Amino acid sequence: MDYSALAFNEILVRLEADSVAVVTINRAAERNSFSRGLVNELIRIFELVDKDDNIRVVILTADPTAPAFCAGADLSDGWKAPTLHNIQSATDHRDSGGRVAMAIYNCRKITISAVNGHAAGAGVTALQLPFDFRFVWSGAKITLPFVRRGVVLESLASLLLPRLIGLSRAKALLLTGATVQPDSPYMQGLYHDVLPTREEVFPASLIFAKELAANTSQVSIAYTKGLLHHPGKSIEETHLLESRALAETSKSRDAEELTRAFFERRRPNLTDTVSNNTSEWYPWWTVVDVKSRL
Amino acid sequence: MDYSALAFNEILVRLEADSVAVVTINRAAERNSFSRGLVNELIRIFELVDKDDNIRVVILTADPTAPAFCAGADLSDGWKAPTLHNIQSATDHRDSGGRVAMAIYNCRKITISAVNGHAAGAGVTALQLPFDFRFVWSGAKITLPFVRRGVVLESLASLLLPRLIGLSRAKALLLTGATVQPDSPYMQGLYHDVLPTREEVFPASLIFAKELAANTSQVSIAYTKGLLHHPGKSIEETHLLESRALAETSKSRDAEELTRAFFERRRPNLTDTVSNNTSEWYPWWTVVDVKSRL
Amino acid sequence: MDYSALAFNEILVRLEADSVAVVTINRAAERNSFSRGLVNELIRIFELVDKDDNIRVVILTADPTAPAFCAGADLSDGWKAPTLHNIQSATDHRDSGGRVAMAIYNCRKITISAVNGHAAGAGVTALQLPFDFRFVWSGAKITLPFVRRGVVLESLASLLLPRLIGLSRAKALLLTGATVQPDSPYMQGLYHDVLPTREEVFPASLIFAKELAANTSQVSIAYTKGLLHHPGKSIEETHLLESRALAETSKSRDAEELTRAFFERRRPNLTDTVSNNTSEWYPWWTVVDVKSRL
Repeated sequence: MDYSALAFNEILVRLEADSVAVVTINRAAERNSFSRGLVNELIRIFELVDKDDNIRVVILTADPTAPAFCAGADLSDGWKAPTLHNIQSATDHRDSGGRVAMAIYNCRKITISAVNGHAAGAGVTALQLPFDFRFVWSGAKITLPFVRRGVVLESLASLLLPRLIGLSRAKALLLTGATVQPDSPYMQGLYHDVLPTREEVFPASLIFAKELAANTSQVSIAYTKGLLHHPGKSIEETHLLESRALAETSKSRDAEELTRAFFERRRPNLTDTVSNNTSEWYPWWTVVDVKSRL
Repeated sequence: MDYSALAFNEILVRLEADSVAVVTINRAAERNSFSRGLVNELIRIFELVDKDDNIRVVILTADPTAPAFCAGADLSDGWKAPTLHNIQSATDHRDSGGRVAMAIYNCRKITISAVNGHAAGAGVTALQLPFDFRFVWSGAKITLPFVRRGVVLESLASLLLPRLIGLSRAKALLLTGATVQPDSPYMQGLYHDVLPTREEVFPASLIFAKELAANTSQVSIAYTKGLLHHPGKSIEETHLLESRALAETSKSRDAEELTRAFFERRRPNLTDTVSNNTSEWYPWWTVVDVKSRL
Repeated sequence: MDYSALAFNEILVRLEADSVAVVTINRAAERNSFSRGLVNELIRIFELVDKDDNIRVVILTADPTAPAFCAGADLSDGWKAPTLHNIQSATDHRDSGGRVAMAIYNCRKITISAVNGHAAGAGVTALQLPFDFRFVWSGAKITLPFVRRGVVLESLASLLLPRLIGLSRAKALLLTGATVQPDSPYMQGLYHDVLPTREEVFPASLIFAKELAANTSQVSIAYTKGLLHHPGKSIEETHLLESRALAETSKSRDAEELTRAFFERRRPNLTDTVSNNTSEWYPWWTVVDVKSRL
């Protein structure tokens, strides 16, 4: 797929060598705030990456010289401005941050958020929590200010944050609305790596991404994310799901090639793809459409 | 509401300025042990606080000179004494600690446990785990001794402790019955703040409480706690719940006032209340009555 | 039960004083790899321990001079070799690691994994995660290499690892396939104790085991594990389960003896057993048979 041909305004997309896609938020003048345009372009690119067999890892980042990685919703015109100004129906409203978060969480490739600046609101929830890995600048100011703005948490944070780091830390962040930094005890376990400068965040995430892209099976990643996101409600159901997934993947070319390359101490030549090598059984969970009817 | 007019024997209740209620366990002579009277008064006060729009934060604490924050069930007459001496029916018995824990967990205001002394049994489970925040004295001895007393864990700890800090740490505490202190690796993430002396615990929690009471929306807190306690069973259901909650809260006076005060760098004048400004949709979960028929 | 009379080939079983059973993996020549024979013997011994009232704690360990605690599946003949070589039906396949993990997780006694060497694959998932406690050598290399071998996670890890240490750390381990050591931030909270030498791991776990065996009620342990593994879907359901469990255990001989011994500062004389002193109500959850039909 030729991403350069796509008419994106709020993001830049480029393909690195080694099947790594890089999405850069391109709204530095607006502190990379969470606009309607950004929302739609992020949903589109993560849905494309999900389907593109040539991509194994996707990184979201921003220009490290921008005033923020993402300042959250643009508050200059009040909370009404960015995503809530036009709620016609309480039942048909769909949170923009949640729509972005679902596109990222459901992406079957490895997803990385490279947080090379301050982040607030949806810049933390939508643009960090649904990712598999979070890299961050040690000086980043991180804020989940919802209760201090008279609104509520969004972008799936009610489910994701307690699952990621436990309910005790999740409440410390969400019920205080405090501004914290990555060394805060309330965020322990959230970030995969903390870098001393803003400039180092993206390069560190890229090295990490390329190594994973070169040495992991795309199909294994898709099944593993599926099992972690939909593990079954009991140990017995989990056992049946894992058993089936193991049976479906055990005879793959990637499995044979990766084992052979491991013993021959060489880089593997990976050929299996999500499009061609997941079985009809996958996905085993019910995919629910919760789009607004409006 | 005039709390001083209520005839409490086991607790003291006072209203601080800034909508903060303070509940002090008043059984120092009995090591603040978990008596039937204390149980009933705690349930009553947390149900009152839940409904009182004038209260935004509630702190539970004890006299720091008492022998313990709460010594758990009074063992002087064996386990039969405090809450289990009169079990008439295995199916109709209701654990006292669990009844207290439900009243605290379901309270829609911010709840803080200021643990300014040693704590054991229900003094840890009922009087710490269901709270949003726990402040503690670094010298406190914390014990969950159930397996060393031939009984079982209670006060919702089976559900709450793994959710708060993970199943690995929960088992370390519950299956050993060991006495630990707040710096124990088995309790990492459980306490919001650890203070060096018993005397500092309550004042630190009060400063924290007043700042939150002054700057957070009562309605946002109620919805946020609702979303964290009832997040939906899937990301899709969570998305629908958050979207609806966001739609219900986005046009509130508090949202407008808090945003304005933020930009004007002044203290907000908060006027929305749980009684008047939650929608008919709230609560969205089924409220189940599990009271005993006895 | 006379365990020495059982014809085990892949494990050694011995009874220590104080109701502690020790299971030692006896495949040092094969790096203690996860063979079909080992699988069947581990399932058998954990099912026996579960039912044997004379055992209160079971430790799984290996010879500390072996090349590994468990090297995972034997890769010398590719992934086809150990457990997947004969998959006749995707729906009827049952993951060997998952079968072992279920036997350990469902064991009603205290279970300890004493990891005195390197561990990979099922040597981490099946042989560590389902245990109540994990002791480890600080120098152990721990690897969950599934995505680097073209297969998927197994042995209930999709459910257990996020519950034990949270989804953020679980993804760090499972989606990278990285080799880490016990001081890794990605494993924080997983291990109960980290010992400086391989030789110290088992003795430390044995001292811990004997103390627990001497001072905890076998019946309390069974109920507590039941409540932690099957806590109810809501706080109300949890309250009902805990209330019933408390009612069932409160009048036990162990409860009275343990309380008395506590006040008399002596070692208790424990007599209640899982066979004789759990009520008809236990287990309250549905036990599901997910054995293969093949």
